[in-house]
Amino acid sequence: MHFDSYIPTRIIFGRGRLEELAALPLPGKKALIVITNGKSMRNLGYLDRVIRLLEQNGAAVVVFDKILPNPVVAHVMEAAELARNENCDFIIGLGGGSAIDSAKSIALMIKNSGTYWDYVKRVKKITEPVLPIIAIPTTAGTGTEVDPWTVITNPDTGEKIGFGDDVLFPKLAIVDSELMTSVPQRLTAYQGMDAFFHAVEGYLACVAQPLSDILAIETIRLVAEFLPQAVKDGNNLQAREQMAWAATAAGLVESTSSCISEHSMEHALSAFYPELPHGAGLVALSVPYFTHLLKKEPEKVSVRYLEMGRAMGEEGNSPEIFIAALKKLIDKVGLSDLRLSDWGIKPDEAERLAANSYEAMGALYELDPVRLQDDDTVQIFREAIMRRSGE
Amino acid sequence: MHFDSYIPTRIIFGRGRLEELAALPLPGKKALIVITNGKSMRNLGYLDRVIRLLEQNGAAVVVFDKILPNPVVAHVMEAAELARNENCDFIIGLGGGSAIDSAKSIALMIKNSGTYWDYVKRVKKITEPVLPIIAIPTTAGTGTEVDPWTVITNPDTGEKIGFGDDVLFPKLAIVDSELMTSVPQRLTAYQGMDAFFHAVEGYLACVAQPLSDILAIETIRLVAEFLPQAVKDGNNLQAREQMAWAATAAGLVESTSSCISEHSMEHALSAFYPELPHGAGLVALSVPYFTHLLKKEPEKVSVRYLEMGRAMGEEGNSPEIFIAALKKLIDKVGLSDLRLSDWGIKPDEAERLAANSYEAMGALYELDPVRLQDDDTVQIFREAIMRRSGE
Repeated sequence: MHFDSYIPTRIIFGRGRLEELAALPLPGKKALIVITNGKSMRNLGYLDRVIRLLEQNGAAVVVFDKILPNPVVAHVMEAAELARNENCDFIIGLGGGSAIDSAKSIALMIKNSGTYWDYVKRVKKITEPVLPIIAIPTTAGTGTEVDPWTVITNPDTGEKIGFGDDVLFPKLAIVDSELMTSVPQRLTAYQGMDAFFHAVEGYLACVAQPLSDILAIETIRLVAEFLPQAVKDGNNLQAREQMAWAATAAGLVESTSSCISEHSMEHALSAFYPELPHGAGLVALSVPYFTHLLKKEPEKVSVRYLEMGRAMGEEGNSPEIFIAALKKLIDKVGLSDLRLSDWGIKPDEAERLAANSYEAMGALYELDPVRLQDDDTVQIFREAIMRRSGE
Repeated sequence: MHFDSYIPTRIIFGRGRLEELAALPLPGKKALIVITNGKSMRNLGYLDRVIRLLEQNGAAVVVFDKILPNPVVAHVMEAAELARNENCDFIIGLGGGSAIDSAKSIALMIKNSGTYWDYVKRVKKITEPVLPIIAIPTTAGTGTEVDPWTVITNPDTGEKIGFGDDVLFPKLAIVDSELMTSVPQRLTAYQGMDAFFHAVEGYLACVAQPLSDILAIETIRLVAEFLPQAVKDGNNLQAREQMAWAATAAGLVESTSSCISEHSMEHALSAFYPELPHGAGLVALSVPYFTHLLKKEPEKVSVRYLEMGRAMGEEGNSPEIFIAALKKLIDKVGLSDLRLSDWGIKPDEAERLAANSYEAMGALYELDPVRLQDDDTVQIFREAIMRRSGE
């Protein structure tokens, strides 16, 4: 037992609690609100509501609304310049992972010089303060509201890289599940499965620790129980609420343990296929990936597979129950027909994807419970591309 | 589900990790090290070691070594003045709860004016910064290394009160179980049971939340398994390590949920009988207290008693299994013969103790799962004073 823990984000959790933004102590006087280029934050009235609440609280507001579903470096730099010019002194990420991750990267670039990618590539060190970040998630998935990670894509290099630093933890996360009822069925499933794999990977990572273990098992149990309900009926407030907590708990897993190479592999997929939702990529990879780990070195993962399978309600004494429970879950959330070929991904790309996954996020392979070689990775990609997700 | 979470303390956990104090980034240049007036920190070499490590790290050091086992206001004020005069810019609490709690209260009083008790009684508000605190626990019990609480006694008013504020979280907790092997058998049992009751009370409190629940069940499970081993053989490093994590986890429970009136009642006992160890008081109160809650309103506690009993390895479907498991645990850690009468406490003091428990820490009664009236409290005290703890 040898571990470090640091999860400093203050969490305000509960239905309707977004309203507290009107009265809680703000970390500054002028906010940059970061949202994606979609229409949802406006159409759902969330943007107007956040602006009104901040103004009630005496803060001025500037909006940056160009973030892409897979956020790119250029927008981070553009928004940071806007915030600098407008003298914003705190940043609000409103939306899913794209908006909140971008808020973190923007907060970093306002006072730190140079190009964002220099920090991602660890060419430059963070020397200046990062502006305080408030995260307001409207999806139950990434957990970014309570973790120090931000995933930005560099189209020039074809890399999609997760970057993290202790100074990137949001100061405050307002997790209000009422903001999540409008997420469409398919996205609910993708996002919930993203949270699920954060927990599964964090539970298997060789840097897992007691705190991440109990949070991971909690998440795995909750997703298995409540994600099918939230997918079936998006207005099931209890299921939305449990999934909101599950996603946040999985964010705490990412802060105390780590993702493993499944995430490196998915980032390679969505670096080349930006239209592929992150959760869809993970689901497509998952059965071949976790089956491969178990076949390659069963003694390294059996005990934990068994625990996860049981947390998902599966009975039995074999580690295979985790794979069985995973397939059932994929089926229950309506994703068993998902095929990577629907996004145009072909089996002969497996080598190129494997190479990218090592180049961009090779470090996560070091944390795997089972050491994967090049040909393991290629084989997992190939199987994932050739099969339906439920198989 | 409606909760706030904030557990910002950085935790460095592991055997031998105290050594990292020589190289980790310190929050200042001159430390006030706070220890109790006993000889153990000197005799065990811990004080010299911490001084050497800090000096290696380039920091100057001043020592305050007058803290009593039940720390008093006068020493908080005296140490704060010393730190001010010596220009100390961070505070280290080295030892058990007395030293670390005092470090927090001292850190508060260095820049904030007036008397400490004014803050405890909420007569004055904290307006000035609290100096950064590093907690180095040498016992597995209080959890104070990761919580915002500090318990100081005011001999003038006969009150022993827990006071907390977000600014009192230590910046850093170094939890090195190798520092705990020297704790004598009886104290190991008292301290471990203190952690146990933090978890049990936090699990039953009406402000319990999902994060505190999983941490509480983890603590309860670990204490039931490993405290008897640590008591039996103080050099059992695995048991010491698991208990170190259990106590820290229970501190996180205190930070995310709360103690309930069992703690108010124990503080009344040890306000009048400062020689009574806190853990001994809790153990003596526990069987009558938890039995009384169950008898008074079984529907309010049954489900959680059952969960706790099961976490302790007890089988069955009745909430009574928790009481049975508690009695077994008290027996296994060698405390079944403990009697409050050994400290001179008499049954006819029950009314006075009950009154004090309401005056000093009445707020915790508001968080009880079962609302206790005056005569409930008196009855629990009377039973606790008349019985052996194991009964």
